[in-house]
Order: sequence, then structure tokens, then C-alpha cells
Amino acid sequence: MQEKVTFNIDKNKNFSEWYTEIVKRAELADLRYNIKGFLVFQPFSVLTMENMYSLYEKKLQEKGHLPYWYPAVIPESNFLKEKEHVKGFSPDVFWVTSYGDNQKLEEPLALRPTSETAFYQMFSLWIRSYKDLPFKTYQRAQVWRYETKATRPFIRSREFYWIEAHDAFSSLEEAEAQVKEDMETTKEMLHDEFGIPFIFFKRPQWDKFAGAVNTYAADTLMPDGKVIQQPSTHLLGQNFSKPFDVKFKDKNGEDKYCFITCYGPAISRIFASLISIHGDDNGLIFPFKIAPFQIVIVPVLIKGKEKEVLKKAKDLQKKLAEKFRVYLDLREENMGEKFYHWEMKGIPIRLELGPKEAKSSEVTLFRRDTRKKEKVKLKDLVKKIEKVGEELTKNLIKKADDEFKNSIINVKNFSELKKINGKFVRVNFCSIDKDGEKCAEKIEKETELTVRGIRSDVKEKASGKCIVCNKEAKEVVYLAKPY
Amino acid sequence: MQEKVTFNIDKNKNFSEWYTEIVKRAELADLRYNIKGFLVFQPFSVLTMENMYSLYEKKLQEKGHLPYWYPAVIPESNFLKEKEHVKGFSPDVFWVTSYGDNQKLEEPLALRPTSETAFYQMFSLWIRSYKDLPFKTYQRAQVWRYETKATRPFIRSREFYWIEAHDAFSSLEEAEAQVKEDMETTKEMLHDEFGIPFIFFKRPQWDKFAGAVNTYAADTLMPDGKVIQQPSTHLLGQNFSKPFDVKFKDKNGEDKYCFITCYGPAISRIFASLISIHGDDNGLIFPFKIAPFQIVIVPVLIKGKEKEVLKKAKDLQKKLAEKFRVYLDLREENMGEKFYHWEMKGIPIRLELGPKEAKSSEVTLFRRDTRKKEKVKLKDLVKKIEKVGEELTKNLIKKADDEFKNSIINVKNFSELKKINGKFVRVNFCSIDKDGEKCAEKIEKETELTVRGIRSDVKEKASGKCIVCNKEAKEVVYLAKPY
Repeated sequence: MQEKVTFNIDKNKNFSEWYTEIVKRAELADLRYNIKGFLVFQPFSVLTMENMYSLYEKKLQEKGHLPYWYPAVIPESNFLKEKEHVKGFSPDVFWVTSYGDNQKLEEPLALRPTSETAFYQMFSLWIRSYKDLPFKTYQRAQVWRYETKATRPFIRSREFYWIEAHDAFSSLEEAEAQVKEDMETTKEMLHDEFGIPFIFFKRPQWDKFAGAVNTYAADTLMPDGKVIQQPSTHLLGQNFSKPFDVKFKDKNGEDKYCFITCYGPAISRIFASLISIHGDDNGLIFPFKIAPFQIVIVPVLIKGKEKEVLKKAKDLQKKLAEKFRVYLDLREENMGEKFYHWEMKGIPIRLELGPKEAKSSEVTLFRRDTRKKEKVKLKDLVKKIEKVGEELTKNLIKKADDEFKNSIINVKNFSELKKINGKFVRVNFCSIDKDGEKCAEKIEKETELTVRGIRSDVKEKASGKCIVCNKEAKEVVYLAKPY
Repeated sequence: MQEKVTFNIDKNKNFSEWYTEIVKRAELADLRYNIKGFLVFQPFSVLTMENMYSLYEKKLQEKGHLPYWYPAVIPESNFLKEKEHVKGFSPDVFWVTSYGDNQKLEEPLALRPTSETAFYQMFSLWIRSYKDLPFKTYQRAQVWRYETKATRPFIRSREFYWIEAHDAFSSLEEAEAQVKEDMETTKEMLHDEFGIPFIFFKRPQWDKFAGAVNTYAADTLMPDGKVIQQPSTHLLGQNFSKPFDVKFKDKNGEDKYCFITCYGPAISRIFASLISIHGDDNGLIFPFKIAPFQIVIVPVLIKGKEKEVLKKAKDLQKKLAEKFRVYLDLREENMGEKFYHWEMKGIPIRLELGPKEAKSSEVTLFRRDTRKKEKVKLKDLVKKIEKVGEELTKNLIKKADDEFKNSIINVKNFSELKKINGKFVRVNFCSIDKDGEKCAEKIEKETELTVRGIRSDVKEKASGKCIVCNKEAKEVVYLAKPY
């Protein structure tokens, strides 16, 4: 099969095709690994996700979290200790049951779908006194879940890459403050670094993390208007500290159970939003700081003049590599193909260097977001790149914010819900406690919209009747169509 | 149980005790996770190993390798494709066989013990032409092996952390050159960065990687004289490209099978050698570049004068954090305890700051390897730290090299072998092909020494008889006692 040289798909009209094609053409992930729902992540996504990990981990460490590596497997007996948790996660668990030539393990091991039941048994050994608190930890890890819904690369798969932070405190107030800190961290990373706008919701009781007191989750919209859950933070209270015996002696020497929170940014899923929100009809656009390569140098090699151009290109690469991630493209392809290739791959800055530039002290700089070219003097180049890089990222964030602004609509009548596509729908709703679940089910069944919860950034007062049951509305909730 | 405040174990006399205690006391890993052979890696090892990963990955990328993330599971059918490989690894494999409530998977999945059978099915999809070659890849990942020998933290466990590089070439010569490059990379990382001396051996045929043509492995000695295998690189030839159909079209358009190599530095096991070789009777000593923290600031807080000292300490931390990884120790402990604590944890540089220093423009700098203190002017501090850091690392490497120099002894008679403890033993040996295996077995049975192979850095000519069977010796081999 002949590969297409150009990439030109209308992202907003044909998002599903755009997404499928860009994952393949930009070599982000290969779906042909022969286990359903598992994929091979390729260099352009891995390099970017490593940069994302690095920024996220630095931030968590600055806020007092220390890194751990826990085993990928959890003994069945641990897994069964918290009964809501086991109910929620059991259907999804892959089980390791044997080794070697069909020899049975003493106890089945869960391939971790999440690690509460691994972390907290260790917390119970490590935490002794109020002096050990707060105890703030995280790990970068992959987790495995036997998804039954359709899988899509980066969006939903049976193996994904995340960070999970687990923190223990001596009081409920401190745990609640941690939940706020996690929301703040989400803003600092998702929005300020990765350019992904979102709303943080308090989830309804029927949709909280299995075992949590309350779940707060960031939701963003994809270009097709579907909602995708991004980092969530969970107030676990003492729900896990009791079965796992996570206790501390307070200042009076009394034994108390810890209050626990956990927080789970999924790097591979954030990557899905990142490429979808910033990409355009010509392919990907990466924010400067996390781009796999920040600069590509394309030497224009005209016969007879290759030597001096090549030398200049290599010198330039060497100099820029001190500050940036640079790729020098010496592949046997024609210019047009190279230009399209790197645009499609989303490299923020392309430098073109031909015989004319090799003689002068200038280079041509192409900027991926605006697709504009300009000549830059070599002596100004480093500063110019820094400036363009910053501007490009700011521009991506602003564009994303502007689009997101118009993503909320108010709806008063149930019948209108069926016509909605691709927005957050703001409605009056009876309750996000268990007694509201029936109304939520009716919405989902008849409109595919799900109740995302109430905003946790602003307090909104309901006035009127529930859009479903017509009882007095206690809440203003937001609905959206999930994948 | 009262924790000991000081650490004082004679490393060379009681290495086993030293190792067990330091892993526990310096909080490197906790063995109380309730699955045999699995452990929880704690911040001081994780921070260091992350730094080691980062240096190693940078080096591999500079040499043209690109990063991938492969699934942690491999379908049984893949795993069975190369018959030597399956023979070698089958006994060690953990199998994922079911999900949810005891529902059987269509096909059992191997928890990867190594990833040849995952990588090469993808190579067969990606590699088309000689233009795609060389194709150089790696992943950072953990692997799982059902070890039956006794496990020891970092040295041998059922889950460990490594990098595996997999490369495909169009000719045997290029593949052989890659093996040499891998050995060079090993030197640049293990010796030049981590300070671990080693000898690279070509392994005997009976001890090569399952499925390889030849295996080359770096062996180093631990302080108890036992040998530990560090990175190995394997010439796989076409042994895997044939069953996995990894082909390319050469310049004449003919289909050819690729030549493949793989290389596996195990970060968690390198960490074991690193702490063992550089540590002393007072605990750990980390090379400056990879230390979890490079500097600890201990403010001497005397009543009534805390405020100005604390301010100065915080200012200092902030300033140094621009260049280094710095920890400011504000725990409620006495000075002596803090000093011992950070010495035991191996932090290269400790800065002491009391009321006197807060008023003057000086600070006291303690250097972990020499355990010497000196006053340093604040204005010279950054430069001084850089200098001391470099010197400390060089000093660790030199000390390790000096000790390693005397680690080889020549032995002529079999009876002498039983007296050997803690060295590489250089002997005449019949053959490292299959016909030498019986002699190797006899040595191992009667002396616990194993045949490590012939040196790959220098060619040594045997003259005389095999130390076991008395036949003409074809090789000079090295023996050592493994864990």
C-alpha cells in the first residue's frame, strides 16, 4: 500500500477519522500487537509522555511527594479487603494464576488495576506516629484493566500509563486540603503546561471511585464533543485505613486511623486529549516544552553544494542541542515530503538551511502553529527559538481556552436533551446522592448523556425542578456524552 | 523495637549483614510486601535509579536508539515461536490466565520475562527495506521471572527493572559491531558514571542467552567476592528473525532476514553493585551525579537563635536548588542523629549552618567519602560543590578500580580451586563449546565456582592442559562463585 504523503483531514468534521489516522501516520502507537486492547507505544508518543512524566513528577516532588515502585501484582487476599473496592474493580482484573509448566501459584495475583490495596498494607508498617504525617507518596506505573467497552488508543485500553499518588493524614481537614491541592496540581499541569482546559466535578455517589467517600474528576471535551475524564482525586477518608490498619499515635499517645487520599493522572490518556485538542487539519502540534523533538533541521541539499550545507547543518544541530531537543533530517526524501512529514508530526519549529543560508548568516524558521516562515539571523537564533517556543505554547493554550469557553449550554426540558451534541449540558437535577441515580439512568438510556456531577470550582444554586423527575432540584449538574 | 542510631558494620568482613542492614536502614527497599520475591522500592533507591535510567537512556538515544513501550504481556503463541528461547525461559514465566470472576482468557499471556518475542513480531511489520536499517530500539520496563534460587533485594528478585535494547541490521558484521558498541556503552555507564569495574566475558555455549548465537556479559565482584552478572549483550543472528519473519528488501530487491542483537542493563541490579562497591562501614556513598539528594543542609538550631539560622538555611536551599538536588533537614531530631542519618544514607555533601555561620559568610561542608569538614565562603560555594562532587565521584571510581585490580588469581591445579574465595580464578580449560560443559559441571559441583567464559577485551592464548580433564586446553577461562 502506498502511504499518503500529505495529511489533510478536517479535524472538526471528521474527528474519528482524524484520530485514527494521526495515531497511525505519526507513528504514535501500533494496534497490531496481537492481544486485544493492548498496544505498542512508539517513539513519538513515548518521548512526549516521558517529558510529561518528568514535569508531573517534578511538580509532585515539589509538593512533598516521594516516589516508590510497587510490585505490579497484588495478592488476592489484599485485593479483597475493602469490599466496595473489590466490588468495583473485580470484573476488570487480570489474574496471574500459574507459573512455568502449568504450576499453580499458592495464591492468585491481581495484575494491579490500581494500587490502593498494595500501598496501604505498607503504610500500616511505615506510619507509626503523628510525626510521620503527612505521608505523601506516588509511583509512575502502568495498570491493567479488562475493559469491556470498545478500546481506542490512548483513550481507553487494557494497559495504560499513569501516576498514582497516595497520601495519609492525621485529620479529615488535611485530607480535604490535599484534594484541593490535587485539583490545583491538575490545573498547573493539564492547563498551564499541556494546554488542556477542563472542569472539575464532584462526581455523583453512584459514579465515585470504588471505596471512596467522594470523587472529584477533571472532565474535558474532545473535538467531537465527547467528554473524557482526566485526573481524578479521591477522598478515601478512613475507608481503607480501617481494613488495612493504617494507624498513628497522636500527640496524646492514642491510636487513630489515618485519613487517606489518592490521585491518578493517566499520562497516556492526557496525551490523547493533548494531541486531539491542539492538532489541526495538517496533523499534530506539540507544546514546545514537551515536544518529542522541539526543532527539526532540514538541510536543502542541492547537487554540488551539499558539503557546505551539510557542515553548517551539523554545526547548527550541535549548537542547538545544548539547549533543545533537535533532529537533523538526513533521510533520502525530497524536500516537500520532509516538510509535510514534520508538520504532520507536530514538531514546533522547523529550520531550513540551503546553499544561500549556508553562505549568509541566516536561517529560515517555520513555526508549526501559525505555519509562518521568517528569516532569522544565526546570532539571534537561540533567543528567537525560546521566544517562538513560548509564544507557540501560549497560543495553543489560548486557542483551546477560547474553544472551551463556549462549551456549556443550559437546557430546561428533557426533550431538548436528545438534540444535544458535543457540549456540557447544564441542567437542574434532583440529587447526586443515591436517590438521584434513577434519573441519571433514564438520561443515559434515552440520550447517551451521563451525569458528570456538580462543579467543584464554583458553588451553583439550583432553582427549579429536576429535568427528569420534576421534583425540587437540589443540584445544578452537567451532562455530557462519554466515549 | 528501638532503631539503632549509628550504622557501623564492617563491610568487608560481614558483607551479608552489611547489605541486609543497609537496605533496611537506608530505606532502599521493603521486603515485607506479601508476595515472595517481590519488594517495594523506596524513595532513596527510586530517586537514584531514576537518575541512572535517565543517564542510560540519554546515552542510548545518542547512539541512535529510540524508546518504545511494549505491553507487559506476551501471547503464549508468540512465546513459543523460538524453541531454544522457550526452553530457556518457560520455567520462569508467570502466566496470566483469567480475568474477572474466574473467566478464562482466550489465550494465556506470559508476564514478560524478557521481550524478544514481543519486539520481533512488530519488527516484522515495521521493517520493509534496507533503508529502514539499522533499526535501533529500546524500552525501559520491569520484567518478571519465577526465580527458584534464593532472592535478595536488588540482586535477584521476581520482578526487576531494566532497559532492553533490540536492534536489527542488514548484515552480520553490523550486528557484531553493535555488540561491541553495547560493550562500550557498558563501560561508559557502569564504569565511568557509576564507578563499577567489570570484565566482559564471552559466555560458554551452555550458559548463553536462550536463543542467542553468542552472549557477552559484564561480570563484577561484590565485596564478599561473589560474582554478579551485569549488562549482557546477545548476538541473536537470524535465530529470531526467521521464526518472526523479520525481513528486508536489499538494494537488489531481494528478501533477506535481518540480523538481530539485544542488550539488557538491569538498573535495579546495577544499583546492587553500586551501593555494595562504594559503601563503607558507615553506610552508603552515592556518586555525586546520581545521588538521590546531592546535598543535605542541616541547620544547627540553638534556642533563641533559630530564626536567623532558619532563614539563612532556606535561602541557601533555594539558591542551591537551581543547580543541585538539595534536602533541607528540619526534622525534630538532634544534630548527632541527623549527621549519622545522612552519612548512612550516603548523601555526598552535608552543609552545616549554625548561628556563627549565619552571621559570617561561611558554611561548613562535610564530604561523605573522605569524611572531612572544611569551611567554605558562601560566594565560592557553588563552584566548591561542583568540584567536591566531581572529586568524590573520581575518588569512588579510583578506589573501586584499585580493589578490582587484585581480583584475578591464576590457578594450575584442580585441588587448589576448593580453597579459593572471592576472586576471579584464571585457569586453562578444554573448551567453551558444548564439549566443555562436563568439565564445567564438575567444577561447579565440587567447588561452587562457575565458568564465566573467556575475556572479550583481550585475546588470551591457552598453553597447557585443561584444569579438569587434562586434555589440551583451547581456552583461558575465568571462574567465580555466583550468588
